[in-house]
Amino acid sequence: MQKGKKKTRFEMVKERHKNTFYRALKENLVDGQVVSLCEFFAKSKNFFTSSTCSGRIVLLQVNRQENKHESAFIAKWHKKASIGKVWSTLCAKTMEEIWLKQEPFIMHIGCADFENAKTILQIAKACGIKRAGIQVAKEGKFLLEIIGTHNISFPVKKGGEILVEKKHLKYVLKRANEKLEKNYSTLEKFENACRKNLE
Amino acid sequence: MQKGKKKTRFEMVKERHKNTFYRALKENLVDGQVVSLCEFFAKSKNFFTSSTCSGRIVLLQVNRQENKHESAFIAKWHKKASIGKVWSTLCAKTMEEIWLKQEPFIMHIGCADFENAKTILQIAKACGIKRAGIQVAKEGKFLLEIIGTHNISFPVKKGGEILVEKKHLKYVLKRANEKLEKNYSTLEKFENACRKNLE
Repeated sequence: MQKGKKKTRFEMVKERHKNTFYRALKENLVDGQVVSLCEFFAKSKNFFTSSTCSGRIVLLQVNRQENKHESAFIAKWHKKASIGKVWSTLCAKTMEEIWLKQEPFIMHIGCADFENAKTILQIAKACGIKRAGIQVAKEGKFLLEIIGTHNISFPVKKGGEILVEKKHLKYVLKRANEKLEKNYSTLEKFENACRKNLE
Repeated sequence: MQKGKKKTRFEMVKERHKNTFYRALKENLVDGQVVSLCEFFAKSKNFFTSSTCSGRIVLLQVNRQENKHESAFIAKWHKKASIGKVWSTLCAKTMEEIWLKQEPFIMHIGCADFENAKTILQIAKACGIKRAGIQVAKEGKFLLEIIGTHNISFPVKKGGEILVEKKHLKYVLKRANEKLEKNYSTLEKFENACRKNLE
């Protein structure tokens, strides 16, 4: 940027998110599978990412209101989860209700203008990603949400009682691990397409 | 519309979707909970709905490719599902893998222009709906997808073998029914807000 030239609203927002990303990266808070894509956007002129997750398997403690802010992660795996680790985590003392979830990737991408946002939509669609949409559309602030489709979610423990049979849980985990693998493939495909088609 | 005036692209698309909706309504193919909202959009000047579901509990047969077109609904409930009915359905002869899913509402809303699409986004956000985005943005074709958040999804049977314990399934169904109820409340809130704020 030229010296003395006033920054646009987008440039200011981008700089803030870029700094947040590099701080999180330094503190090892960014999921490995999504680092290079986030960095690609951070270094670009017209894009930035805000909250992002590459997809994961989690054990989540849910309260009756199902308020996410009140929910607590008992364990998170951003890779294959083993029945041994999941079962032993479940056997530990927990409160409320515990859900096993395999969550797909989720990305929030900020774009400099409407055309950039539409380009991302097209790329996502071409990669077979069905859940992609412009959520905020204002001058200087176009925000997209992109989510994978692979998903598992069900309650496995209530109070002190494990509800799911170990054999059943083992099967669900096998499927969750397979879905997570597919999820990462889609994310990789999306990254390659972004690198090929943007800037 | 004035006689002789050429229809816009949006007006033509709207008319086609409106006719599809009224045909589906006549054939009893539209979920009860979403009829009045779809009718509201059908009668409006600037909006239409395409594929829409009010939210449901389903038993779904999934093949290894997880291709939705190849998947078959074993049973659907657009209201509370009872353990008796779900269990007896599970006990019948089935192939492949069976998943129990509680799916949230999903609406696809077409808008005449960008401003209309942004208004729907604002209404959805004000109703606490997080998954709302513009998926297609072209002159004469602005298409939004709006999805509720409540969701359960896990495999319960593989080949001839029921994997889930009846007691566990009963608990999951109780939670699925509660979530479906919340889902319908959100949908109702969204309908009221649309009637209040649009046209």
